[in-house]
Amino acid sequence: MKIALMMENSQANKNDGILTELEYVAKPLGHNVFNVGMNNANDHYLTYIHLGIMAGLLLNAKAVDFVFTGCGTGQGAMMASNAHAGVFCGYCIDPSDAFLFNQVNNGNALALPFAKGFGWGAELNARYIFEKALTGERGAGYPLDRKEPQVKNANILTKLKSDLIGTTYVKSLENLDQNLVKEAVGGERFQACLFEHGQDQEIINYVKSLLH
Amino acid sequence: MKIALMMENSQANKNDGILTELEYVAKPLGHNVFNVGMNNANDHYLTYIHLGIMAGLLLNAKAVDFVFTGCGTGQGAMMASNAHAGVFCGYCIDPSDAFLFNQVNNGNALALPFAKGFGWGAELNARYIFEKALTGERGAGYPLDRKEPQVKNANILTKLKSDLIGTTYVKSLENLDQNLVKEAVGGERFQACLFEHGQDQEIINYVKSLLH
Amino acid sequence: MKIALMMENSQANKNDGILTELEYVAKPLGHNVFNVGMNNANDHYLTYIHLGIMAGLLLNAKAVDFVFTGCGTGQGAMMASNAHAGVFCGYCIDPSDAFLFNQVNNGNALALPFAKGFGWGAELNARYIFEKALTGERGAGYPLDRKEPQVKNANILTKLKSDLIGTTYVKSLENLDQNLVKEAVGGERFQACLFEHGQDQEIINYVKSLLH
Amino acid sequence: MKIALMMENSQANKNDGILTELEYVAKPLGHNVFNVGMNNANDHYLTYIHLGIMAGLLLNAKAVDFVFTGCGTGQGAMMASNAHAGVFCGYCIDPSDAFLFNQVNNGNALALPFAKGFGWGAELNARYIFEKALTGERGAGYPLDRKEPQVKNANILTKLKSDLIGTTYVKSLENLDQNLVKEAVGGERFQACLFEHGQDQEIINYVKSLLH
Repeated sequence: MKIALMMENSQANKNDGILTELEYVAKPLGHNVFNVGMNNANDHYLTYIHLGIMAGLLLNAKAVDFVFTGCGTGQGAMMASNAHAGVFCGYCIDPSDAFLFNQVNNGNALALPFAKGFGWGAELNARYIFEKALTGERGAGYPLDRKEPQVKNANILTKLKSDLIGTTYVKSLENLDQNLVKEAVGGERFQACLFEHGQDQEIINYVKSLLH
Repeated sequence: MKIALMMENSQANKNDGILTELEYVAKPLGHNVFNVGMNNANDHYLTYIHLGIMAGLLLNAKAVDFVFTGCGTGQGAMMASNAHAGVFCGYCIDPSDAFLFNQVNNGNALALPFAKGFGWGAELNARYIFEKALTGERGAGYPLDRKEPQVKNANILTKLKSDLIGTTYVKSLENLDQNLVKEAVGGERFQACLFEHGQDQEIINYVKSLLH
Repeated sequence: MKIALMMENSQANKNDGILTELEYVAKPLGHNVFNVGMNNANDHYLTYIHLGIMAGLLLNAKAVDFVFTGCGTGQGAMMASNAHAGVFCGYCIDPSDAFLFNQVNNGNALALPFAKGFGWGAELNARYIFEKALTGERGAGYPLDRKEPQVKNANILTKLKSDLIGTTYVKSLENLDQNLVKEAVGGERFQACLFEHGQDQEIINYVKSLLH
Repeated sequence: MKIALMMENSQANKNDGILTELEYVAKPLGHNVFNVGMNNANDHYLTYIHLGIMAGLLLNAKAVDFVFTGCGTGQGAMMASNAHAGVFCGYCIDPSDAFLFNQVNNGNALALPFAKGFGWGAELNARYIFEKALTGERGAGYPLDRKEPQVKNANILTKLKSDLIGTTYVKSLENLDQNLVKEAVGGERFQACLFEHGQDQEIINYVKSLLH
């Protein structure tokens, strides 16, 4: 899998530590990690609103398969991500959340709190969350006998989200304040990830048009 | 405040207990509680997808001010609610989540897990969550010195969600499979809440049109 | 109730914040709070081992009715407290732990983690824990129909702990390295609490003998 | 390692499930698991008081190296275990608790809540706890630079607990109501574990004397 990690301004100084844990787990499993958000407090400035747009672009363009996002409590990043069609972002504070989210909801993003409850052991908890998020079958159901309705509901949600928008993903972004989108796509590592791995030319062209 | 509680099929048998806790907390504070989801396993059938539509209708119509929703893990209800413009649904497993969500995000819905981690003490945890969700200033910021960017981001998210849809809320629902919406609005207690307290005639007329 | 708060060296700098929350909750309920551990990193030096001895002395002398203790993870303070006859120390990370501990175990001490999981919201969580620890009936049983065996077991545990030691509490302390006890009782606020409120002359005399 | 699992009457019906998770983790690591408590509601009757005595006997006799214990909230089992010299029992609700307890406290027992918070995902959480409790270096310190004081305190606690009792472990048990000890040692699987693997003849003889 291609996996994006994205963090915003309020917790940017924790990016190195979280990235280390994610790579520690993801690399031996053969996954590629893209650290596309803020790496430190002086990096290209991003809020959780921008993270939501970034998740929407990368996932809809299939530049990545999964996104780990977050902010102080993780709630802002989670809500901003879920605003976008094609993004299905759970909220995760312990390893079994990550496992259950895979089994039941089979989404493509998880938001973590990087300040709430973040004390001794937080980097371990992040590591264990990554372990359980990145191993195990997806969409297998939990409890197992509830697989059928759970898979069905996940599919209905996917359709519902794009139906609510009622147009292409790019067109939904064009309805936004374009400065907001421009800020969201302003980071070099984000651009590299999207342009090198994105598989949707409409999205890539749209983002490139904003950068000129 | 007017507060809706909505639960789906997988945890419908817990509705009585959760409703008791919510009323225990909400009534002395002068709030009105509307139990608009499933009350038992034989009640009008609802999935978390329906709960999302119901939350969208009630909040956008201003029939209620706040929604408590949930499912087995709470993640489905949370994602399905956040799919809708005008719904800002946090995920809440402990009382400080509820407090922080008010302070930082000032949303209008909280999703709870009604099976994950739901053992001894779960009804107490629900009660304490309701206590902290329903008291205290909203949008005051946490930490306090971050009030300004947090309020600003909450406002940007509100605009972003309706911009992404790019049309009225009713029109976004008309893009959906209308059977899905019909199922969502089929419960009597839901209808009573919307029709008696809703303040948006377009939404009320739309729902009534589905019922004929 | 008379309530002691005791913190050790590794988290001494958090004492002000925790004390503020404890007093915020305890004072309106008419309780007296005694801050008998380290107040800052330069205060009389204490480890969790010392905290255990201090809890043993204060509770056995009936100088206080309840102790809040803790360390980085809280586990050291909890184990060191439970080593002593007459101390029944639970471990508490969320408000329902505190409530259940009262109902089921009716102990006289709670250990909290002051570094593990201690991030945004930690002071709120401490406040809510204090709220639930200091209100509500004790020993009422949970679930209620299990009151009888739960009360019975709490009584058996009380007897078992003093039987295991098989002598008076002071004599058990005299078996320890007396320098350890001397260090434990070296703080002025601790001494004031014990000497002004202690109701067991044997314990008071023993501690005074160490100080000369 | 030799590992004992011990559960009491209130949660005896969960023993099969917990044992399955423990063996799933422990066997591939080469550990032996001894299920010495109640296996179902009709098994030899045990309370958490008995579990404490059982943990004391097995650990002091070196019949096992580590004990997983618990009850409804886990607090009773934890306190009853910590009453005994030679038993250092942490309280554990998530995987990072287990890891930190090894690193910081290097104890020989962990108490888990088998009813509190025990809903969907509880068996996963137990599995992940076992994983982290049974892997990784012990006593390595957390944070790493605090290894020296943490190891020192663990050693002081060990000495303090036996000093408080001031006699041999068997003599401390002889101070108890002998019927209580007799009940604690009445289970066949417990006896097999102690008699086949115990390395302290005084303890074995004492227990055998109670059974005749």
